[in-house]
Amino acid sequence: MHQTYSIEELQARVRAVLARAGMNDTQAKALSRVITAGERDACKSHGIYRIEGTLRTLKAGKVRGDALPRLHPDTGGAIVRVDAMGGFSNPAFDLGLPVLVERARHFGLAALVINDCTHFAALWPEVEAITEHGLAALVMCPSYASVAPAGGTRPLMGTNPLAFGWPRPGGDPYVFDFATSVAARGEIELHRRAGTPLPEGWALDAEGRPTTDPVAALAGAMLPFGGHKGSAIGTMIELLAGVMIGDLTSPEALEHLGTTALAPTHGELILAFSPAAFAAGRPGDPLPRAEVLFQAITGQGARLPSARRFAARALARRDGITLTAAEVDQLDRFLALGLEAVA
Amino acid sequence: MHQTYSIEELQARVRAVLARAGMNDTQAKALSRVITAGERDACKSHGIYRIEGTLRTLKAGKVRGDALPRLHPDTGGAIVRVDAMGGFSNPAFDLGLPVLVERARHFGLAALVINDCTHFAALWPEVEAITEHGLAALVMCPSYASVAPAGGTRPLMGTNPLAFGWPRPGGDPYVFDFATSVAARGEIELHRRAGTPLPEGWALDAEGRPTTDPVAALAGAMLPFGGHKGSAIGTMIELLAGVMIGDLTSPEALEHLGTTALAPTHGELILAFSPAAFAAGRPGDPLPRAEVLFQAITGQGARLPSARRFAARALARRDGITLTAAEVDQLDRFLALGLEAVA
Repeated sequence: MHQTYSIEELQARVRAVLARAGMNDTQAKALSRVITAGERDACKSHGIYRIEGTLRTLKAGKVRGDALPRLHPDTGGAIVRVDAMGGFSNPAFDLGLPVLVERARHFGLAALVINDCTHFAALWPEVEAITEHGLAALVMCPSYASVAPAGGTRPLMGTNPLAFGWPRPGGDPYVFDFATSVAARGEIELHRRAGTPLPEGWALDAEGRPTTDPVAALAGAMLPFGGHKGSAIGTMIELLAGVMIGDLTSPEALEHLGTTALAPTHGELILAFSPAAFAAGRPGDPLPRAEVLFQAITGQGARLPSARRFAARALARRDGITLTAAEVDQLDRFLALGLEAVA
Repeated sequence: MHQTYSIEELQARVRAVLARAGMNDTQAKALSRVITAGERDACKSHGIYRIEGTLRTLKAGKVRGDALPRLHPDTGGAIVRVDAMGGFSNPAFDLGLPVLVERARHFGLAALVINDCTHFAALWPEVEAITEHGLAALVMCPSYASVAPAGGTRPLMGTNPLAFGWPRPGGDPYVFDFATSVAARGEIELHRRAGTPLPEGWALDAEGRPTTDPVAALAGAMLPFGGHKGSAIGTMIELLAGVMIGDLTSPEALEHLGTTALAPTHGELILAFSPAAFAAGRPGDPLPRAEVLFQAITGQGARLPSARRFAARALARRDGITLTAAEVDQLDRFLALGLEAVA
């Protein structure tokens, strides 16, 4: 039967599932928070749907459920480095966040580098955690080779998400978080199941020719958003958040794992900016000035990104999160069987 | 009659034109370099074509030809701030560059903020100046309100260029530099002159309806590249390189100047990253690793951004830069008449 949980109840349940599968408390706590945040914000594709893949990756021995992330010895500079020690990215982020915040305030801007992590979550939980400290954030990471560069024919870059946040005191932050591919792989999968053609410009077939056939697309390559511009941004993400931080690029991540059925291993680059430091000595307070810009956007009928998520969040806080009977059963099965529940 | 100049000869001639118009040597030197770089790289829209608008802005009293940019008192942090003192952005960049490079090497990353500048140049000359020091660069600035946010109806954001560079020792750097609007205003103007319709998705008319009529588009708004994703990036540029650095946003820049016929006034944000610092202690040297990525791009028939520019540059170095008779005459007229040559 379907069931309604408070946010805290659902998080505790997800945490118990992950602990039952053998994760230590550091990993289970961080992961249960982002998975529950996905459900809370009605981002079902980043909610409990992700548990199965997470357990599968754990069972395949491709991520360490017992990892304790490690903060690198202090260099005193503006780069904070956390080694995820083969665990998930989220506990590594949690460990690095306080240092990142302190450095960004001190130097004006700072970077958090996460290395050797398995990544499956959206980037907006991290962006929002930074904006809560009154800082702006820019976050990026590679993924798997699945996107052809503009003018190319074969998968090379990942769907390489780019996320940004700006603090709005007393309200939800300004946040965007999107793949630099024109569509997500899951959207192509939905067209395949429905038997409907893809829109033009989404994908290439295995021979590198444009296709609207979802089956051919899944065997070929996705295309970057915005043509050569999106392709350039995707390349920048490979360079900054792969090559520069000494971690895997998307083609290397695919080669390393050998499949797209498990969560990928790579690094992540997180930049934090202090608006107070950047605006110091200049006319105008940046936070109220940003509100003028946001009002000019919404005042002409355009929406701010993440508006749908924040509306869902408000509802979840008031009414709780309702899972379907199938979802409740799946959580029960995971709790009963642990890793035995997945192939 | 058409004439061929060496790069140095053309730069000296442009510098003389700007000095004749009343610019001091600091301004004339920096501007002549970027204008000549535009001709050298066959970017005619950033070449000597820009001189007339520059002189018009000077004559209108909207930029100070006698400005001496000023480096702000040292805060010791990772933010370097240069006040352009109402002059052009380029001499301010030249003043800040050595400090930016030193800070980026020291802290791992650093930001150069330019305030109170008039901006008319491409961003790639600055990106390339940073990559010459073995650093990666990310540069952005607002412009005028001329682009509607995705889902909106009226001009709000500027064409807000975003540029990035990665150093390639012994070769031309990896560089992209593009407007976050789907097309440049000049491209719409070309369609108007040719009497040809615009492609779908480029613009809105004055009532906020999609249009392919270039005349209606020029009275309306341009659209961001890549739909809501490009719109979000354009908004980020208003926030980081306008609001955060305590300088004008694109709607404020338009209001300040009251016209789009002169070069806009605002600020600029330049981020520099040290790959050596970011990769320290990690396996693999980032510069050779990046070459593997570039080869995978070109190896499947895709082009790297700026390839056309670099090819033109090689030709200009060998054969010089040939101006048409009309261009030669225009430079002669500017030299003879100074600001009298423009309306």
